[in-house]
Amino acid sequence: MVDFSKIIDFFESSNIPKNMLNRGQLVLNQFLNPIKILFEQRSVPNDPWTDEQIEFLLQTLSNMDTDKDNNTARVGEREARIASKLHLRTSAGFCHGVGRSGFLTAPQPKAPGGSIMYELSNYLARNILRNFGLPNIKDAIVVPLCTGMSLSLTLGALNSDGVKYNLNLKRTVIVPQIDHNSLLKSINLVGFKPKIINGKIFGDAVRIPIEDIKSNLDEDCFAIISITSFFPPREPDNLKEISKFAEENDLVHVIINAYGVQSPEWMKLIRSAIDAGRVDAIIQSTDKNFLTPVGGAVIASPIEENIKKISQTYAGRASATPVVNFLISMLSLGINGYQKLIEEQQQNRKTLERKLKEVAEKINERILDIYNPVAIALSLSNLKEEKLYALGGALYNLRVTGPRVYNPKEKSFGTCCSNYPTPYIVMNAAIGAKEKDIISAVERFERAYKQIVQ
Amino acid sequence: MVDFSKIIDFFESSNIPKNMLNRGQLVLNQFLNPIKILFEQRSVPNDPWTDEQIEFLLQTLSNMDTDKDNNTARVGEREARIASKLHLRTSAGFCHGVGRSGFLTAPQPKAPGGSIMYELSNYLARNILRNFGLPNIKDAIVVPLCTGMSLSLTLGALNSDGVKYNLNLKRTVIVPQIDHNSLLKSINLVGFKPKIINGKIFGDAVRIPIEDIKSNLDEDCFAIISITSFFPPREPDNLKEISKFAEENDLVHVIINAYGVQSPEWMKLIRSAIDAGRVDAIIQSTDKNFLTPVGGAVIASPIEENIKKISQTYAGRASATPVVNFLISMLSLGINGYQKLIEEQQQNRKTLERKLKEVAEKINERILDIYNPVAIALSLSNLKEEKLYALGGALYNLRVTGPRVYNPKEKSFGTCCSNYPTPYIVMNAAIGAKEKDIISAVERFERAYKQIVQ
Amino acid sequence: MVDFSKIIDFFESSNIPKNMLNRGQLVLNQFLNPIKILFEQRSVPNDPWTDEQIEFLLQTLSNMDTDKDNNTARVGEREARIASKLHLRTSAGFCHGVGRSGFLTAPQPKAPGGSIMYELSNYLARNILRNFGLPNIKDAIVVPLCTGMSLSLTLGALNSDGVKYNLNLKRTVIVPQIDHNSLLKSINLVGFKPKIINGKIFGDAVRIPIEDIKSNLDEDCFAIISITSFFPPREPDNLKEISKFAEENDLVHVIINAYGVQSPEWMKLIRSAIDAGRVDAIIQSTDKNFLTPVGGAVIASPIEENIKKISQTYAGRASATPVVNFLISMLSLGINGYQKLIEEQQQNRKTLERKLKEVAEKINERILDIYNPVAIALSLSNLKEEKLYALGGALYNLRVTGPRVYNPKEKSFGTCCSNYPTPYIVMNAAIGAKEKDIISAVERFERAYKQIVQ
Amino acid sequence: MVDFSKIIDFFESSNIPKNMLNRGQLVLNQFLNPIKILFEQRSVPNDPWTDEQIEFLLQTLSNMDTDKDNNTARVGEREARIASKLHLRTSAGFCHGVGRSGFLTAPQPKAPGGSIMYELSNYLARNILRNFGLPNIKDAIVVPLCTGMSLSLTLGALNSDGVKYNLNLKRTVIVPQIDHNSLLKSINLVGFKPKIINGKIFGDAVRIPIEDIKSNLDEDCFAIISITSFFPPREPDNLKEISKFAEENDLVHVIINAYGVQSPEWMKLIRSAIDAGRVDAIIQSTDKNFLTPVGGAVIASPIEENIKKISQTYAGRASATPVVNFLISMLSLGINGYQKLIEEQQQNRKTLERKLKEVAEKINERILDIYNPVAIALSLSNLKEEKLYALGGALYNLRVTGPRVYNPKEKSFGTCCSNYPTPYIVMNAAIGAKEKDIISAVERFERAYKQIVQ
Repeated sequence: MVDFSKIIDFFESSNIPKNMLNRGQLVLNQFLNPIKILFEQRSVPNDPWTDEQIEFLLQTLSNMDTDKDNNTARVGEREARIASKLHLRTSAGFCHGVGRSGFLTAPQPKAPGGSIMYELSNYLARNILRNFGLPNIKDAIVVPLCTGMSLSLTLGALNSDGVKYNLNLKRTVIVPQIDHNSLLKSINLVGFKPKIINGKIFGDAVRIPIEDIKSNLDEDCFAIISITSFFPPREPDNLKEISKFAEENDLVHVIINAYGVQSPEWMKLIRSAIDAGRVDAIIQSTDKNFLTPVGGAVIASPIEENIKKISQTYAGRASATPVVNFLISMLSLGINGYQKLIEEQQQNRKTLERKLKEVAEKINERILDIYNPVAIALSLSNLKEEKLYALGGALYNLRVTGPRVYNPKEKSFGTCCSNYPTPYIVMNAAIGAKEKDIISAVERFERAYKQIVQ
Repeated sequence: MVDFSKIIDFFESSNIPKNMLNRGQLVLNQFLNPIKILFEQRSVPNDPWTDEQIEFLLQTLSNMDTDKDNNTARVGEREARIASKLHLRTSAGFCHGVGRSGFLTAPQPKAPGGSIMYELSNYLARNILRNFGLPNIKDAIVVPLCTGMSLSLTLGALNSDGVKYNLNLKRTVIVPQIDHNSLLKSINLVGFKPKIINGKIFGDAVRIPIEDIKSNLDEDCFAIISITSFFPPREPDNLKEISKFAEENDLVHVIINAYGVQSPEWMKLIRSAIDAGRVDAIIQSTDKNFLTPVGGAVIASPIEENIKKISQTYAGRASATPVVNFLISMLSLGINGYQKLIEEQQQNRKTLERKLKEVAEKINERILDIYNPVAIALSLSNLKEEKLYALGGALYNLRVTGPRVYNPKEKSFGTCCSNYPTPYIVMNAAIGAKEKDIISAVERFERAYKQIVQ
Repeated sequence: MVDFSKIIDFFESSNIPKNMLNRGQLVLNQFLNPIKILFEQRSVPNDPWTDEQIEFLLQTLSNMDTDKDNNTARVGEREARIASKLHLRTSAGFCHGVGRSGFLTAPQPKAPGGSIMYELSNYLARNILRNFGLPNIKDAIVVPLCTGMSLSLTLGALNSDGVKYNLNLKRTVIVPQIDHNSLLKSINLVGFKPKIINGKIFGDAVRIPIEDIKSNLDEDCFAIISITSFFPPREPDNLKEISKFAEENDLVHVIINAYGVQSPEWMKLIRSAIDAGRVDAIIQSTDKNFLTPVGGAVIASPIEENIKKISQTYAGRASATPVVNFLISMLSLGINGYQKLIEEQQQNRKTLERKLKEVAEKINERILDIYNPVAIALSLSNLKEEKLYALGGALYNLRVTGPRVYNPKEKSFGTCCSNYPTPYIVMNAAIGAKEKDIISAVERFERAYKQIVQ
Repeated sequence: MVDFSKIIDFFESSNIPKNMLNRGQLVLNQFLNPIKILFEQRSVPNDPWTDEQIEFLLQTLSNMDTDKDNNTARVGEREARIASKLHLRTSAGFCHGVGRSGFLTAPQPKAPGGSIMYELSNYLARNILRNFGLPNIKDAIVVPLCTGMSLSLTLGALNSDGVKYNLNLKRTVIVPQIDHNSLLKSINLVGFKPKIINGKIFGDAVRIPIEDIKSNLDEDCFAIISITSFFPPREPDNLKEISKFAEENDLVHVIINAYGVQSPEWMKLIRSAIDAGRVDAIIQSTDKNFLTPVGGAVIASPIEENIKKISQTYAGRASATPVVNFLISMLSLGINGYQKLIEEQQQNRKTLERKLKEVAEKINERILDIYNPVAIALSLSNLKEEKLYALGGALYNLRVTGPRVYNPKEKSFGTCCSNYPTPYIVMNAAIGAKEKDIISAVERFERAYKQIVQ
């Protein structure tokens, strides 16, 4: 076997001087050293890795899987046979996927390298969350599913005893009004009924009073969902009180933290909720928080057993790619890179507010007074219905992606309440956005506004 | 815009002679022409594409997505921002994933190219199945989920009206005994109870008599599952009769065709079942049938509406990679490549049987008489319990992957019945296996057998 | 053939809305449009291309070469057959190389795409030089040879009539002292003798007086070499006077502008020389000026015929890679990117001077008064011989690459004169260097100096 | 530093069972082991490496070069700074190129990895030639130049003393008529005059009688060139006699073995020549013999000192890519792969002869009786001049690349003699060609012939 720590030994009798070889070894060591540290510490590196280092790690690990073994006789029905070398790229070489017999984190005998890769990724998932606001979680897992499907999986997992032992099941999940289709679908998918507690208007903000939640508890309630990140005018839930309420009433409590890791404020809400009462799982998207392609989520929990249950509920094996994507993000960002992105986000949020305020004054509108560390809503009270509609189209033509123009009279779903009085537009200064995105979006908004008003 | 059909026009005034430019254009056209045909016919190409052609298509399409647009102002919370260029590789550039608001096949405005890619893939999925045994399906969809999770999704989708309208739901799914954890988990996950109809022994084979299924019907039954491909001694279900039974009793009928596309015989069973009665969905793995990395499935149906329902049930957006992997396989194999693989499989199956028979005679055992076009079981009646256990280990050490040594006395789960009398070993001549796999697996088995017998 | 300008037409009957398809087309056009402009204008783009755009161009062109034609019957002895797909990467697909029968720029019938690529590259070579200081050149060529070998080729080419017609050849090349091995070797290689005119000391600087050059002319003189960029204490030659002298005496005049494109001042010297007298060729390195890997040069000339002669002198076909590398640099930098690099260089040069001055004062040395827009020399008068030697080693250990510590007493070759009185160290603020390189090199120098002085 | 031989140690405390980790290590070792053997034996591996293994080696070595060292302060004028990551691909990471101060094989302090790569490649060059016919060479070097430029370099190198010491130089090189432009240019380039000894016709073949060579010797003769591989009707030179003649008359003797390594018969001629007299250098193309992209050559010699001289003559540094390409070919073919290619070539040569004979009979022509283990010439006596011209065009349109239709009356250059009586067509069954190339070329020739005859 090649011991790269001794590569120079092979060349001692060569024409290349020893001090040059030493220099080469030193440079190579610098390249390889972060891999060693990763294996030792199993935590997100402080500094970003280069793409080449990440590829080197992935290639080394994927070359431990048995599909790379030319000397094997394969007589299973699944042996990670592939039709094209391009598949090695889309899977980063982990053709066997992850999981075994419907147990996601179970080591897969045909894929030792893939198993190590997944174990590492889960360590890093726990580590990044502990570093950025949740020191009180016990375990975490990266799942190759979006946030919504992760909620299905979590509810299914935490209900599994019920199903298995054929108990008289509770079927209701309390949902403080969250106007999001995927979320409601995810509850339906696993056979539960959402019991929606309607949002109420407080000034500009929409909140769901804890009293309303409490008064809606009945015997069929199995779980309660709460959220951090959401679109204005909906504010985050009172996680701490919900957490206490869940504990008192023996309810499963799942926090949807879709794109909340980017905000230390939202993370603090979760931390307090964990300390105050019962939190079963916290679900966050890998793409919205960690800049991966769409398709993964991190599920964390202060209860180690919960993560195990969840990992045993995925009914089969799964694509390794969303896991690899998370790993790539962690290594290419590092703790410092992620910290920097968070600071940039906070700066951009301020810029967005300042720029929108300037426009607001010109057009006689105002920033709505809603707590949200990522998004801002601006009133559009002076626009008639057809103009509101035209505004959306105008922004699309000006290539602004992501803003939401809302007319509550036309459609209340999305405001998380009934009869929200003010039309508005929402923009996000989300993690990974650039200052130029923010500035040019506001400029184009102003241009679009003027166009349609004329 | 560059019109590559006229690339030579740009060079007419150059020093390069016209006939050379024409030759260049001709070679380039040969490279690009399959792309044109794919767009026109939306069917699996007859002949394999090169990797370069596949990459060219993927790159062209992924460069239609808005995350590649430098001139956009992005103020959404999800904008396919990525931390590393390596993510472009694992996602083939489709960072936005697939789906919109929990509707998998809905076009995604931020990802026109990704939407085209997914639509194309679904056309090809329908086309390959129609070409290889199921001309009577109406639609198909590639899902970024394994077979088991696809069953969850299908059951959830076909039950969605019940959940939505809060009806008094039926909760039972009839399962002719299938000893497979993922499958049972997938039924549990979405809130159903499997009602298992026990397998019975007929000679060497294990079957579930249609009468037993019929006599177990009760009012709580919502669906019935049936299978084609499975491990011996379990034989495929009587799909035609189950299909009629489902129709008569208004049961949802889902066929698990995990690795069945490779066998024209299994496919014929399904085709007849569709013609004879009710089949709601047929689920097949992309990796086991189409040589992709693990992580996807194709769900097909003779009922177009069903596929739409299923695609609306995935609660969120999903990784594009399993879809891209399916597309890569289709293009790199082509109809002719797949046909060739099927013929090779059939040849290998014969070789496996011949070689195992030779060994059987030497060791005084016999090939079990079980119908299976992929796998073969050999009796191990002369081995005592501890030797059976040792055999598995010995094979592992000899680097034979995939064989299953079974001692029914020790563990009946897996035999699909109780009291199966004969210990046995199963080997597969599955699609994509090489002749040398088959031959060397049998040789090593013989070696291992002798080792442990001594 | 696929007309990518009409890709959406294929999808008009799809489920994807027209406005989404239009958006996709718009993004794709943005990706492809620079290619169209390049073909139309044949000049260095203003703005940088992305790596993906460059790859797309290279792949399109290389797919016009006949080795990509599956339908060809190849019965030549050279058909660009390759042993491994990795060769496609190292050659960017241009396996046929460049040239035909020892005529570099002659179109190669088997490689229409490669021929276009090379023609384009030569246009860009002429264009970049015209943009950055030499509007008065007529033609340029990228050669897959370093600066020294390019001089051999140039001398050989401009002497070819002599060899061909068997004339009584002149054999001497006048070289104002340039202490550089490769250069002297390059003159020897093609059968000439360098006649070296010794450098003289003027203050700190070393120059070769034009009178000395003039007085050394004899009947055997065929050519004269002059330089711009070189290491202090050698200053650039008086190009204008040499140019006049060459014209008056019918001498071939080749300017070695090794890494001179980065400096508008050096380029101005050449421009004036062209206007004032005779310049046959100007040779510049692609790696030192344009940030390619080592291995190419650009030869330019105000005389179109010269470039043709040179391109007909390379005795065979050549690797396409150094040409492709030049093309990659041009496209990935663009005019604006290169302008920015030049400004950064000038800034770094100032920083280097300021920082070195600070150290000089501390150690009682001084910046030598030598004209050079890239490099700076600092006196090391206070160090004894063995300390000077130790300083080099210390810098090596501190990982400073590129500084030259010179002790003229030990070795005069390199100073371009005899008896240069002062030991010195040279550092470069060359194009592509980062500010942190400059700052940390000076810091480490100070540290090394203190170490060895103690 | 990571010691990959102990990667499992890092995971001993993980959830992954020890036996699985061992299996992973075993598979990884199988991947890495060939690298170890290569370092130990420094010879061409017996069996082909995978692309992934080759990439792993190249990446490991290129990561030893100082341009990969983030901690270096770079203040040289050449520091392998690159404008784009694409350059890492075209150079396989070896951005520093090869060589130092005009000494190709001198270790480059800034590029320890590149220096190792080059040293390895040169070992493999010597080894492959020793394995395939030339056990009696002492050293070899891969140069980033084509065959012709390699001849220039070789002549220049072996003449360097003359130039350096200003001796009264001999200026003539004896060339047994070789009608090849590049070769003649290469002699001119370095200041020599070729003295061509005319070819004579012997039956169908063209040879240059040794007596004619001997009688042309004069005092100005410095060297003699001889060839193996060439186009019919020219046969290989009488290497043995030329070799003796060179020894007797103190002439430098360079053998042009352009694409001769593929033929054990040609190699045997060289081997005998080395044993019989004086051979200074043997030059072979890397692309025509070893299936690399165009741009490199291997120069071998039975005199170790000669290779050193040659490597000191390249006037500067050079692109590493042609060297890397040679290395890639060696590793991806292996001794066994190359042996197989040679056998395939021999088979194809027979097929070509058989097929051409069949056509010859039909059209009343004949295979010319000329010794050549690669190419075959067929007479075209029945075609008039304009038909001969038309035949070339017709073959081009039918996409046959590489055949040469010759009408000696129109143009004698190429026949290596004057007044060759018979028009003919030449086709090659060269190494790397496929049987289908041969068969379809002959078929298309027949078709083209019929077309133009009608």
